[in-house]
Parts: sequence; structure tokens; C-alpha cells
Amino acid sequence: MLQLPQSPVVAIVGATGAVGREMIAILDARRFPAASLRLFASPRSRGMRIPFRGSDIAVESLDHGAVAEGIDLALFSAGKGISREWAPKFRDAGALVVDNSSAFRADPACPLVVPEVNPHTLDAVRGPAIIANPNCSTIIALVAVTPLDRAIGVERMVVSTYQAASGAGAAAMEELESQARAFATGAAMDTSIFGRQYLFNVFSHNSQVGDDGFNEEERKLVTETRRMWGRETVRICATCVRVPTLRAHAEAIHLEFARRTSEAELRQLLAVAPGVAIVDDRAGNRFPEPLAAAGGDDVLVGRIRMDPSVPDGRGAALFVCGDQIRKGAALNAVQIAERFLPTEVTSAPLPAAHPAASAAVGAG
Amino acid sequence: MLQLPQSPVVAIVGATGAVGREMIAILDARRFPAASLRLFASPRSRGMRIPFRGSDIAVESLDHGAVAEGIDLALFSAGKGISREWAPKFRDAGALVVDNSSAFRADPACPLVVPEVNPHTLDAVRGPAIIANPNCSTIIALVAVTPLDRAIGVERMVVSTYQAASGAGAAAMEELESQARAFATGAAMDTSIFGRQYLFNVFSHNSQVGDDGFNEEERKLVTETRRMWGRETVRICATCVRVPTLRAHAEAIHLEFARRTSEAELRQLLAVAPGVAIVDDRAGNRFPEPLAAAGGDDVLVGRIRMDPSVPDGRGAALFVCGDQIRKGAALNAVQIAERFLPTEVTSAPLPAAHPAASAAVGAG
Repeated sequence: MLQLPQSPVVAIVGATGAVGREMIAILDARRFPAASLRLFASPRSRGMRIPFRGSDIAVESLDHGAVAEGIDLALFSAGKGISREWAPKFRDAGALVVDNSSAFRADPACPLVVPEVNPHTLDAVRGPAIIANPNCSTIIALVAVTPLDRAIGVERMVVSTYQAASGAGAAAMEELESQARAFATGAAMDTSIFGRQYLFNVFSHNSQVGDDGFNEEERKLVTETRRMWGRETVRICATCVRVPTLRAHAEAIHLEFARRTSEAELRQLLAVAPGVAIVDDRAGNRFPEPLAAAGGDDVLVGRIRMDPSVPDGRGAALFVCGDQIRKGAALNAVQIAERFLPTEVTSAPLPAAHPAASAAVGAG
Repeated sequence: MLQLPQSPVVAIVGATGAVGREMIAILDARRFPAASLRLFASPRSRGMRIPFRGSDIAVESLDHGAVAEGIDLALFSAGKGISREWAPKFRDAGALVVDNSSAFRADPACPLVVPEVNPHTLDAVRGPAIIANPNCSTIIALVAVTPLDRAIGVERMVVSTYQAASGAGAAAMEELESQARAFATGAAMDTSIFGRQYLFNVFSHNSQVGDDGFNEEERKLVTETRRMWGRETVRICATCVRVPTLRAHAEAIHLEFARRTSEAELRQLLAVAPGVAIVDDRAGNRFPEPLAAAGGDDVLVGRIRMDPSVPDGRGAALFVCGDQIRKGAALNAVQIAERFLPTEVTSAPLPAAHPAASAAVGAG
């Protein structure tokens, strides 16, 4: 498996977006041992400076191929088009690329990885490569469901999502907030992002709908899960819906297993599942909520119950919430990168004595 | 079947609540031939006057049994406790009662009715009786799914709800709106109704959770559907969730049928289904939304598609929205009452020439 240098030169492409900014914060909070950080964004961000570990880093634009030189690790979150064009250039210049867009998720040469789900896939990475970060709703569902699949075998999964504004970017979050302010003052609402009032509303996910009636977001949940689980036969159906929340997705998940299970078994498996925190207080009616998941690393899992509409004790249901910007995107990308560090960094924050803690970091 | 008088004396119990006020508006808009209208609410509303057809009706309180005298039709929406105590008194005094609470929904002596679903059940009502209005999320789901069940046979239904504030009453709607205003000004949010921030959040339905992990709202969807369809074997599992919308519920519904179907068949059945309006513009990405359903009578149905995760072409999925206060409560109650009018009034608004249009109505 490829090893990054002890102190890699790190680049973030899409550094001024919601995910890019979170990547910067997560690298810092997890004391990622970056020798230096280079930040790339579209030309309209040129001249912007972003603070990181005591220095202000000037944002660069992707204006010529040479910008990729000397970079060990590049985290991309600037959209599919930029990834398609630039991720191969960064890889060819020697970088390990972790790409948050959908550009390479179906490419057999690019592992599609959630560290809690299929970390072994990374073993095959022996040199500079592009690794794809799955879609946010897939990551959040699979952190909770994969340990159940491994132990009990999932045959069918029906998912209904409650997706936040952040999946459509920082501007969508701002539009939702601006609509609340407009409501309060009676002003006209800005609806330029979604073409409709989002405040106090719910709408089918704003991705393209195919001839079979499924939108791209629903399709991703199916194809990405099958690829990561390595089973084309697993049956999945999703309804993806946008709700007026800011940055954490929720998902109602109904599962059909290959064999009989019990609530106790589900709870045992989830209690030790990496990246999962159980929030399941029936008496107090406290279960996962987007506001509780926001800003955190864990996927919150609750409403853990058997589904009696599936025969033979083979059905169960869950309700999960995860921060779309963190585990759904930025955190997962950083966690993938951490697997390639010489001394594996898997839990955050690291103790202050860790060599990374005092690593010098300058603008690139 | 019982017949109401040509111009019945109508009472609304719970007249100052969100559903009670909507009942008044719907009686007016549908030109319900009320001889007079009497309005009841808790003692704290005493002295309040509510306009109806040009007169101001004084709100009465339920202070002695005699208040029920002389009433032909009573629409109850004042909570389970009031219904348990007072609905039998109104019935015993000769009224036909349509009760919007859960008090009588499981009582074999009280038909549980959605006119589009099981109107025949009303044939057995031969004298004063209590008829139960189902729970809002059940009504909205079944208006869409019952025509499919009749033609194709539903074996299993998995429902995830996106429920509005209104299901918890006018105060819950006001709390959500007040939180948007507080967000805009940076003030502290009032969280007295739900004990949490509702704006920009989502949470598991605020009804009691049983030992099996299901909350009351989810249980109602199962038991009420089985009762109305007359099939205890139909398999149903629900996840009921509150989202920050004001007055229309949405539901993602995944269906498993007894035989193979096709999208064309589903569309044909839904196109002629009473109370259903199809909103399914794939190219324009326009599907049912709470804001579009709010204030309307129809259940909006869209995202109509086959579910390939069910074998043999037996699966389908829908996304529905309906106004919780209207079809989910007030409208359904009035529609039930209309079935008992001598000249059946089934569509609104009636032509101006209808005898009800000029009926004199005074305060009771």
C-alpha cells in the first residue's frame, strides 16, 4: 500500500466551498501532519487568504498544469467537472487524490471508500491514485448498516432521506437562512438556488430524474452501496427528499435480512460499530436529530426496532443522522487520507505529544 | 342509512383550534346546508365570537349535559379526553357525531371512515352514532394507496412520513414560525411545545414510544389501515417524523403488491382516483410539496415509479402530500357528514343555486 511522506504537502481543491472549509478545519482539529497546505479555488476567489495553523494561506487558482507539482495529497471538492479535468493531472504529478465528486465513483481504477465500510480496498493502492469519496447519503447510511450487513446479511434496504441544504453547497444553506429572515420581515424570499420556497417546505431531491422515475441521488445510493459491499444483487430502493435543515442528513432505513435477528443483536452490533453513536431514548423520546448530528463526527443511530412487516424476524428499521459536510464529505475524505500516513492516524483528536502536533505549516 | 335533516343544526366542538376553525371555513366554502352553527371550546375561549356567514357566533363551553340538546350533527376536534366524555352525550341527545380524535377509532361500534376509502361502512349507521375520523397520516396515505390496493392488492406498505407542525395544533405552528422570527433577530427560541429547536431540524414523531420501539403515530397507520381495508394480514411498517413545515404532511410510500403491475397501470388507477391529483413532472423536477398541498383538498401524488427492489414487477413507490388540517382532519369530517345529507353533497363548491347557498344561519 502506498505510504504518504511523514509530513505530506497537502492541497485542497475547492477550498472556499462548504466542504473545502470543513476539510481545512478537520485537518487542523485532527492534527493532520501536513508539511504545508495549498488551497485552490475558482479564479473569483483569487487573492482570498484563509487562516490555517497561524498563517494566512493565499488561495490559488488552477491556471496551469504545473500547480500540481510537489503535492503529496490532494483533497478535491470542487464539483465533477473540475475533478474530471484536474484530479488526473494531480495524480499524474504524483499526488494521492481523494475526490469528493461523483466523477470517479464508478471507475474500476478508483477505489470507492468509507473507512468504516471497506478499508481493505485501499490495500491495492500502490502508487499515486484517485480514490473516490461516496455520496453523502450513501456514506451516512452505510456507516450504520454495514456492520449489520456483515453479521446478518442485508437482502433489501428501503431508504427515505431527509436531506439538508448543505448537500447543494454553502449558497443553498445561505438561501435557506435568508428565507427565514425574509419570513420574519415579510420580505420576498430569494429562491434562486432551488426555484422554490425551501423554508417550511419539503421537495423531491433536486437531481435529474431518469426514465425509470429515480433521481440521481437515489441511483447513487444503489450503485455505490453495491460497489462497496461487492454485491450486485443487494436490493435497494430509495426516495431522496430535501427538507429545510442546514447541514445534517437524516434517513429512515428499513432492512430485510438473510436470517432472523433480534433487537438485542442489532444493538450489540451497533454499540461496537466504528463511527456510530446510538441515540435511542424511548422514554424521553430522544432519537437522532440533524441539529444533534451537526458538527459531529459520528453517525447517530436510533429508532432501532424490529420490523414485523417482514416475516420470520428478518426485518428491522433504523433512523440515522449524520453531518453531511463532515462524515458525508470532508471528514470521510480526511479519514481515507489518514490511512496512507506512515503512522496511522485513526482517531481524533490525537494526543498533544503526537509528532504532528508541532509540525510547521506554511502557505504553499 | 341515517339521514340528517335538510338543514341540520351543526355543532363544532373544539371550534377555536386549527382544525375547528378549518371546519367552519369548509362548511362555509362547501355551502353545507346548516340551519345554524353552534361553536364549543374550552372555558378560556368563553366570550369569543367567530364569524360565520355574516353573523358572529358566540363560543359556548361544555358546562352541562343540556348543551347537546337539539343538535343534529356534531364535529369534534377537541382532543381525546373531551371526545371520550362528550361525544357519547351528543350522540345520546340525538346527534350524529364525527370525531377527529383517536378516542373511538378502535371501537367496533364506531365506523372509521375516509369517504374515498370505505364509504360503504356508513350504510350501517341507522341512528345517532359516533363516526371516527382516522389519523391524518393514515387518511393522506390511504386516499392514494386504496385504489391501488383494490385493483392490484397491497401485501406490504413501508411508509416514512414528513409531518407538519399542524398535527400538534395551532400552537405548534405558531412556535415554528416564532422560531424563524427568533432566528432572524438572534433572539432565544421558544421551545415550549416540542422541547427542542424545530426550525432547521427534524425529529422522530412526538407521540409515545412503546416497548416494540414504535410510536403511537406509527401504530395508528398500521391499525387504522387494517381496519379500513378489513384485512388484519396486510403488512405495514412506518417511520413517523416531524419536519419543519406548517400544515401539510408528506409521505414516502413503498408498496409490495400481490401481483405484477406496471407504471402505466398505477398512473391509470391514480388518474381516476377520487381525491387524488397527480403532480409528477420528471423533466421539470416538480413533485408533491407541502406548500403546494397546503390549503387544497386533494392529496397530491407523484414520484410514481416501479420499485425494482421487489421481485417480479410487484413493487412501486410514491411520494404524497396532503393538507393535514383539511383532508387530514376537517375536510374528511365534513365529507363524512355530507354523506348523511338528504341530497348528497359530494363536490365543492356547490353551484350558487343550491338551496344551502341562501340558508339562514344564526348563532346558537
